[in-house]
Amino acid sequence: MTVEELPTTEARRLLPVLREIADEVGPRAGAEGRVADYIPALSEVDPTAFGLAVAGVDGEVLGVGESRTPFSIQSVSKAFSLALALGADAEALWRRVGREPSGNPFNSLVQLEQEDGIPRNPFINAGALVVTDHLLTTTGDARGAVLELLRAESGNPRVDFDASVARSEAARGDRNAALAHFMASYGNLRNPVADVLEHYFWQCSIAMSCEDLAAAGLFLARHGLRGDGSRLLDRSAAKRINSIMLTCGAYDAAGEFAFRVGLPGKSGVGGGILAVVPGRCTLCVWSPALDRHGNSVAGVEALDRFTTLTGLSVF
Amino acid sequence: MTVEELPTTEARRLLPVLREIADEVGPRAGAEGRVADYIPALSEVDPTAFGLAVAGVDGEVLGVGESRTPFSIQSVSKAFSLALALGADAEALWRRVGREPSGNPFNSLVQLEQEDGIPRNPFINAGALVVTDHLLTTTGDARGAVLELLRAESGNPRVDFDASVARSEAARGDRNAALAHFMASYGNLRNPVADVLEHYFWQCSIAMSCEDLAAAGLFLARHGLRGDGSRLLDRSAAKRINSIMLTCGAYDAAGEFAFRVGLPGKSGVGGGILAVVPGRCTLCVWSPALDRHGNSVAGVEALDRFTTLTGLSVF
Amino acid sequence: MTVEELPTTEARRLLPVLREIADEVGPRAGAEGRVADYIPALSEVDPTAFGLAVAGVDGEVLGVGESRTPFSIQSVSKAFSLALALGADAEALWRRVGREPSGNPFNSLVQLEQEDGIPRNPFINAGALVVTDHLLTTTGDARGAVLELLRAESGNPRVDFDASVARSEAARGDRNAALAHFMASYGNLRNPVADVLEHYFWQCSIAMSCEDLAAAGLFLARHGLRGDGSRLLDRSAAKRINSIMLTCGAYDAAGEFAFRVGLPGKSGVGGGILAVVPGRCTLCVWSPALDRHGNSVAGVEALDRFTTLTGLSVF
Amino acid sequence: MTVEELPTTEARRLLPVLREIADEVGPRAGAEGRVADYIPALSEVDPTAFGLAVAGVDGEVLGVGESRTPFSIQSVSKAFSLALALGADAEALWRRVGREPSGNPFNSLVQLEQEDGIPRNPFINAGALVVTDHLLTTTGDARGAVLELLRAESGNPRVDFDASVARSEAARGDRNAALAHFMASYGNLRNPVADVLEHYFWQCSIAMSCEDLAAAGLFLARHGLRGDGSRLLDRSAAKRINSIMLTCGAYDAAGEFAFRVGLPGKSGVGGGILAVVPGRCTLCVWSPALDRHGNSVAGVEALDRFTTLTGLSVF
Repeated sequence: MTVEELPTTEARRLLPVLREIADEVGPRAGAEGRVADYIPALSEVDPTAFGLAVAGVDGEVLGVGESRTPFSIQSVSKAFSLALALGADAEALWRRVGREPSGNPFNSLVQLEQEDGIPRNPFINAGALVVTDHLLTTTGDARGAVLELLRAESGNPRVDFDASVARSEAARGDRNAALAHFMASYGNLRNPVADVLEHYFWQCSIAMSCEDLAAAGLFLARHGLRGDGSRLLDRSAAKRINSIMLTCGAYDAAGEFAFRVGLPGKSGVGGGILAVVPGRCTLCVWSPALDRHGNSVAGVEALDRFTTLTGLSVF
Repeated sequence: MTVEELPTTEARRLLPVLREIADEVGPRAGAEGRVADYIPALSEVDPTAFGLAVAGVDGEVLGVGESRTPFSIQSVSKAFSLALALGADAEALWRRVGREPSGNPFNSLVQLEQEDGIPRNPFINAGALVVTDHLLTTTGDARGAVLELLRAESGNPRVDFDASVARSEAARGDRNAALAHFMASYGNLRNPVADVLEHYFWQCSIAMSCEDLAAAGLFLARHGLRGDGSRLLDRSAAKRINSIMLTCGAYDAAGEFAFRVGLPGKSGVGGGILAVVPGRCTLCVWSPALDRHGNSVAGVEALDRFTTLTGLSVF
Repeated sequence: MTVEELPTTEARRLLPVLREIADEVGPRAGAEGRVADYIPALSEVDPTAFGLAVAGVDGEVLGVGESRTPFSIQSVSKAFSLALALGADAEALWRRVGREPSGNPFNSLVQLEQEDGIPRNPFINAGALVVTDHLLTTTGDARGAVLELLRAESGNPRVDFDASVARSEAARGDRNAALAHFMASYGNLRNPVADVLEHYFWQCSIAMSCEDLAAAGLFLARHGLRGDGSRLLDRSAAKRINSIMLTCGAYDAAGEFAFRVGLPGKSGVGGGILAVVPGRCTLCVWSPALDRHGNSVAGVEALDRFTTLTGLSVF
Repeated sequence: MTVEELPTTEARRLLPVLREIADEVGPRAGAEGRVADYIPALSEVDPTAFGLAVAGVDGEVLGVGESRTPFSIQSVSKAFSLALALGADAEALWRRVGREPSGNPFNSLVQLEQEDGIPRNPFINAGALVVTDHLLTTTGDARGAVLELLRAESGNPRVDFDASVARSEAARGDRNAALAHFMASYGNLRNPVADVLEHYFWQCSIAMSCEDLAAAGLFLARHGLRGDGSRLLDRSAAKRINSIMLTCGAYDAAGEFAFRVGLPGKSGVGGGILAVVPGRCTLCVWSPALDRHGNSVAGVEALDRFTTLTGLSVF
C-alpha cells in the first residue's frame, strides 16, 4: 500500500503539489544565487541541493528531494527562540523589542541609537539577541531550551548543534558583538554580552532537515499547541509570531516575500525557509544558493509555486 | 422585506457582525486618541463619529453607523493612485520606488538620502509622490484620474475634492515639498515639483463615505476587476497592492496592524481605513480619533473584532 | 617709481611672495580637478585661470595673475551675508543656526531632522539659507544688502549679480529647495521659501575679482571695521566669523584646509577662496578647477604655499 | 630672589596672567557644570578644584592653583597616542581614519556605518580606538608607549595608570566595545578587540598634574621636538595634530572652543584641557565640573581669558 492509498491527510493531499514543485524548481537549484561564504562550514554546501517537506497539523510529515538532509538552520531558529521567550514574561520582552518592520540593514545601528537601544523587531539580529538574552534569563540555558524544543517537536533526538559552525560564527561575530554591546550600553541586555552571543551563535548552528523543521514548526500552524497536545503558546502569541514572520521574516526582502509567497515565513542563510499555513500545515524548503538579501532563491521560488498552485496565499 | 430576508450574499451574511461591532466599538469611538489637528478642516471633525461598511465582491454594499457620511480619505487615496499608476508602465514605476517596509519615519528620510532618492515603498509620503508623478506623466491629470476611478467604482458621482482641505494641506505642505524637491534633486520626479504636490494634495482631499470607499476598493478583492467587469489590474498587480497594504499600509504601526487585523489595509489621517478580504469583500471603517501613529483607534479595533469574529484573519 | 619703491605696506611686503606663488602654482592651474559643471555659466570658465590678490588692513590691494577678472563668488558670499545678518539681532540668529562643524554632506537632511531643523553652522547650505532668511527679515532685501556691502568695501560700483548664473542655480535648485522647505516645516524660516531661495541664489551669483573680494573682506582682518572706519561688526562677531571660517569654511574638507592653510577661509564652487590673517591682511585666490570637495585645487595650493612661505599659519 | 627676578622666560612672562586668571576664574570653579559621574573614580573628584600651568618651549613649567594635583587625563591622552602612532607608518594610519570634524555624536555613528567603518577623525572615540590599534601593532604595547612618553616628557617618573579608573571604564565600556566590534566587522582593527579596548581604557586612566601635562605636550609647541632635542614628529605631523586639535579637540563643542579660545586644544572628561601656542608654549588647565559637551567649564573659561589677555588667539 503506497502512501497515496492511505486515508487522505493534509500532507498527503499536498504531496503531489510538492512533487510538481520539486520537478520544476529542483533542477534549477543553484543556477542562480550564491551560497553564504562568510564562514567555511556554510560555503562548502552543495549549491544545487533542494529539499521540500510538508507537515500537516495532524503531525504527518512528507517530503521530496533532499528533505531528510540536515542543514544549518541559522535564522530560522529565531522563530523558535521567540516562541520560547514568549512563554515566560512576554510583556517584559515586548518592552525591550518592537514588532515593526525595520527598513534596510544599513540602519541597524542608526535605528538602535535613535530608539534608545530597542530593536525594531525580534528577527533582525539585534532583536534576536534580546530574545536570546530574555530566554537566558528565564531558562538559564537559552541554546539548550531551543535545542530541546526542536528535538521534541521534530521527534528527532539526533537534532544537534554544529560546533564548527558555532565557532566560525563566533570568530566572525563582530557585527553581532557590536549590536550586543551597543544595546548593553543602553541597559537592554540582562546577561553578560559574551554569554548572550555564545547562546545566540550556538542556537543558530543547529542542523536539522526539512522534515524535522517542518514538524518542529507545527505549533505555529496549530495556534500554539505542541505535538503532544500541550500548549507552548496561547493563540494570540502564535498569531503574533506568524504576523511577525509575514512582515519581517525574510530580511530586507520581507515585502517581496509577502507578495510572492503570501505566507508567514522565516528564512536563514543556511538556505532554509520555514513557512506556515495557519490551521493547516507547515512547509520547509531548503536550497543553499541565496539571493542578495540572504534568502534561498529556489526556496522562495518553491514557496511561490506552492501558494500559486494551491491558492493558499493570503492575497 | 428586510435586507436579511433577501437571498444571502456576502455583505448580508456579514451585516450582523458589523452590527455587533458597531454596538461594541461605536460607543467608545473618540474615548481614546485625538483627531488630526494640523489643518483646521480635519481638526473640526467630531471625534466620536463611527461608521463601518462592507462590500461583497458581488457589489452589494451595506453599512452601520455613519457609513454614509463623507470624510477626508487622505492616505487611503494612495491605494487608488497606485492601482492607476500600475496600469501604465508599471516596470518604470518599480524602478523609481521600492516595495519594502520602511522602518520609522526618521529612517525613511535617512534611507531616501542613502538610496539615492528612491523611496522604500509607495505608501510612505515620498513614495506616494513618485506614484502621483508617474500618474501625472501617464494620464496628464493624476488627481482627476483618481477622482474618476473613485466615482466610477463607488457609483457615486458626488464624490469630490474638498478644496479647503487641499488648500490647507498645501499651506502646511513644507515637509512634502522637501521630500519632493529632494527626490527631484536625484532626478526621481518627471514633472515640476509644484504640479506633483498640487495633484497629491488634491488627491488626498477627496471626501467620501465608508460605503463609497468600500465599493470603490472592490477591485482589490476581485483580483483586479472593476465593477463593470473590465480589468483595472492584472491579478499579479492586485496581489502586489494587497501585499504592500499588509506590510506598509498603517504608517509606522503596520506590524501591529498585520497582527491585530491580519488583512491588507490602508489607513488615512482622516480616520478612515480600507481593508480587503481577497476574493470575498472589502471593509471600510471611519472614526476620526487617531493613535500616535495616525491610525484610527476605533477603526483598528473594529477591524480587529471583525477578523476575530469571522476568522478571516490571515493568521 | 615702482610699487616696490613706495614706503613699505603690508600688501607691498607680501607682493613678492604672491609673485613666487603665481610663478609656481599658476602654471599648474587646471592640471588637476574639474570646473563645476552643474550649471552652464560655471562650466564654461577656463580651468587654467589663476588670480591672487592681497589686501592690507590699510586698504592697499595688490594682485598677480588674473586678479582683476570677475568670477562667480558663490559660497564666498556666505561670509558677507553672515556678517550683515549678525549686525541685527544676532542672538535671534544664533538660536536658529549652530556654530559647529557638520560632518559629511550626506547627513545634511539627517542632521537637520535630528536637530529639529536647526542647521549645524551658517556655511552649510541649510545654515546659509537661515542667514539669508534672517537678513531678509531685518533688511527687506537680503541680496541687495550683500551686493551693497561688496560694492562699498571693494570700492567697485560695477560689482553685480550675474542673472544667468542666478537663474541657472534656481533651475537646478531642488536640493536647496528641499532644505528650505524642510526647515520651514520646523518653523525655522520666517519668509516664504521661494523668496529665501531667490535671494540666496542671487547672492551667490555675484561676480567680482580677487582684488575686489580681498578688499571687501578686509573688515574680517580689521576686527569688524569697514573701510571708512565705521564698525560693521563688534570684535567678538568678527572673531566668531573667522573661527567659523577656519572650522567650517571649506565644505567637507575644512579639517584639511585648516591643516594646510591654517587660516580662516571661505571657498566657493566658482573657484574663489577668501582667506583672512586677522590684524594684517586678507587674501583672495581664484582658479576654477575644483577638487572632489568643491574647493579650488590651485587655490588651496596657493594659500598653503603662502602660509608656508610667510609663517603666517596658525599652527 | 623670586621667580619674577630671574631672567625672563616665556613661562615667567605669562605667570602674572595665570595668576590673574586663577584669581578671577578659580573661585567660580564648580559653580557651573557637573563632574563626570559615569564611573565612581571620576564622580568623587572635588568639583571646585582648579589648576593651571604653562610650559615654555624652553621647558620651564610654572603653575597656579592645584597645578600639581594629579587628575585623570582621559581623552587628553588621545593627542599623545596619535603623536606616537604617527611616528610609524603614518600613511597606513591615515587610510584607516579621517581628519575632518564629525558632526554630533549621533552622526559619528551614522557616518561610521556609511563610511565603511572609517572614523572621521582620531579624536572621536572610534578614531582613537583605531589609533590605539595602530600603535599596538607598531609597538606591541600601546598603553605602555603612551605612559613612557608622558613620563619622559613630563620628567615625572611617578606618572602612572590608575587601575581603578581603567577597570571602571572597562566595566562601563559597552559603547566603546560596540564601536570597536563594529569597526572590526569592516576589517578596520588589526588586533583583537579586547586587546584594543584594554589598551585604550588604560591609556585614558593615566593620572598626572597640569604641570606634568603641560610639559609633556611641549613637543606640539616645538614643532615635533622632544625635551631632549630628539625628534618625535616631523614639523608637518606636529602641525597636523595641532590642526586636528583646533577643529576636533573639544568633542561636539569644537567650534565654540575654537571661537572662545582660538588655540589647538584637547579636553578630557576628567576636567583637563591641554592647549598649544605653537612656537611658544603649552597650557594645561584642570577643573572637574563639565559642561554638557564634556568640557571643563572653568577650564574653557580660563583659556578664553588667557587668549583675551595675551592676544594669543588665532583670530
